[in-house]
Amino acid sequence: MPSHKIIYDTDPGVDDAMALFFLHYSPDIELVGITTGHGNAPVETTTRNALYLAERFGIDAPIARGAAGPLSGEEAHHAAFVHGENGLGGIDLPETVALQPIDQPAHRFIIETVRRHPGEITLLAVGRMTNLALALREDPGIAGLVKAVVIMGGAFGHNGHGGNVTPAAEANIHGDPLAADEIFAADWPITAIGLDVTHEVLMTTDYLRDLAAEAGDVGRFIWDISRFYEAFYRRKGLDGISVHDSSAAIYLVAPHLFETRRGAIRVVRDGLAFGQTIQKPDRFGFPPGAWDGRPSHAVCTGVDGPALLDLYRRTLRRAAA
Amino acid sequence: MPSHKIIYDTDPGVDDAMALFFLHYSPDIELVGITTGHGNAPVETTTRNALYLAERFGIDAPIARGAAGPLSGEEAHHAAFVHGENGLGGIDLPETVALQPIDQPAHRFIIETVRRHPGEITLLAVGRMTNLALALREDPGIAGLVKAVVIMGGAFGHNGHGGNVTPAAEANIHGDPLAADEIFAADWPITAIGLDVTHEVLMTTDYLRDLAAEAGDVGRFIWDISRFYEAFYRRKGLDGISVHDSSAAIYLVAPHLFETRRGAIRVVRDGLAFGQTIQKPDRFGFPPGAWDGRPSHAVCTGVDGPALLDLYRRTLRRAAA
Repeated sequence: MPSHKIIYDTDPGVDDAMALFFLHYSPDIELVGITTGHGNAPVETTTRNALYLAERFGIDAPIARGAAGPLSGEEAHHAAFVHGENGLGGIDLPETVALQPIDQPAHRFIIETVRRHPGEITLLAVGRMTNLALALREDPGIAGLVKAVVIMGGAFGHNGHGGNVTPAAEANIHGDPLAADEIFAADWPITAIGLDVTHEVLMTTDYLRDLAAEAGDVGRFIWDISRFYEAFYRRKGLDGISVHDSSAAIYLVAPHLFETRRGAIRVVRDGLAFGQTIQKPDRFGFPPGAWDGRPSHAVCTGVDGPALLDLYRRTLRRAAA
Repeated sequence: MPSHKIIYDTDPGVDDAMALFFLHYSPDIELVGITTGHGNAPVETTTRNALYLAERFGIDAPIARGAAGPLSGEEAHHAAFVHGENGLGGIDLPETVALQPIDQPAHRFIIETVRRHPGEITLLAVGRMTNLALALREDPGIAGLVKAVVIMGGAFGHNGHGGNVTPAAEANIHGDPLAADEIFAADWPITAIGLDVTHEVLMTTDYLRDLAAEAGDVGRFIWDISRFYEAFYRRKGLDGISVHDSSAAIYLVAPHLFETRRGAIRVVRDGLAFGQTIQKPDRFGFPPGAWDGRPSHAVCTGVDGPALLDLYRRTLRRAAA
């Protein structure tokens, strides 16, 4: 029986799709909803992609469309050069799909679902944090009612990894730093899986080829959508693709594969370090500052990459069974 | 024959004094001058301390007094809670000493000395970067005439180490971020030894006790000045003292003990991350940004701590010989 009720807040996105497959095929996860947002592509595109993926692979969670841009009201920036214009690596996709989103915005779906299952829902957020922040603004009381919040986001400098959008900032936080600062201000238990660990895990071409051979239609689909994405990472000098969103998904069921550090987190909202996440470690003393009075959250600082890759592969094999 | 002509820009400071002893007793180093500045204590105090140390331990380099505060004109902040009010751990010190500073401000002494020995001088800066920035402002041409610049400063996030004054910022950079940003903008070869490595090296009480037994009067003096300093680090949970300035001094003669990463460096001058150093690694691509067109510098990312501690101890033993 699944032990984790998950709302997946996502902007598919190649690695978002790969993480969605993990959630769908993991026996320990019950996907109670999917919420979409701006990020890797415009929200119209990410919502279409979520609906397409659900329809094609028989994922029957309700899908709620979310925010089109950051809380600041500024224009959203997308990552077509990473995920392709259509968000799924440029593969052929229908303009529209039969499946429709529910008639409720993402943040309200989050609030209602959390209130219907107090203490049971884990929010897994792998795009901009806008939907989570909107939910908190409308109903701050949900902070005390979620089981946990797991995000893919941030770059805290561990293992020599800085940002990816700038030397300081990771894309999900950079895309809405105000939303991120607001979710870190809330007293709910967040674990941030940032570039510190996701840049430590690599799916090589051989790994992806094995997936294509072993994981049926899903495996072949992953191969197809990851060609453009892999080319981007190869231009950066990597021998494969970094494992961003799937690392956060895997944290849900295998937290023992990660090391963490606790402390209050602030997000820089202007200047050179715009979009940077800065944690004040609980175990060090500092003079009074902007972190004081904020709740402590966990940041992943280390990961057992081979075990993570093995768990992903074993889970995806269930797609062919 | 000494192979390194060094100007030591310093704010003694307990660990500044310890690094000065290394420079003095290292057979590979010729100390051609000492310049003082604000930092661990006011410049009046750090200058008095430099003069006292030179007089007491027979160090015959000229001493030039430097800047009293940061380039911004704001008030200087000192670290009496780390180094004691008198900068040397509260030991008994004379109000004044017979030895006098030369009749030239620090930055002008730097310019003249570099111009007199083109290509031969290495600047070792372990306090605020104000004197170096003033020298560059007055004579930008010196950038092409120094052999190297080695600084103790910055926190680049390696090995899980953030700042010490704030979660983002290290004290030497935080104390004059504008000066630091200006020296990183210059096209001279900088190596930054930051908290990434200096927080990886610890002198334990036993280590310091051995020094006191083995390194004559200097060893006993180090023991005396480090009692207050060690108490500060013990309150932070460390089992001894971090090795800041001496790590930079040792880099001069033993760069093979360090790993480095190259890239342009910017310093944050406002907001949450005030005083933070951010490097854009040369080997990663980023969209256009504030690092573009800046020269690449080296940042230390790893250190052989035991070898470093052993070299310091062996060098200081010469004081008793």
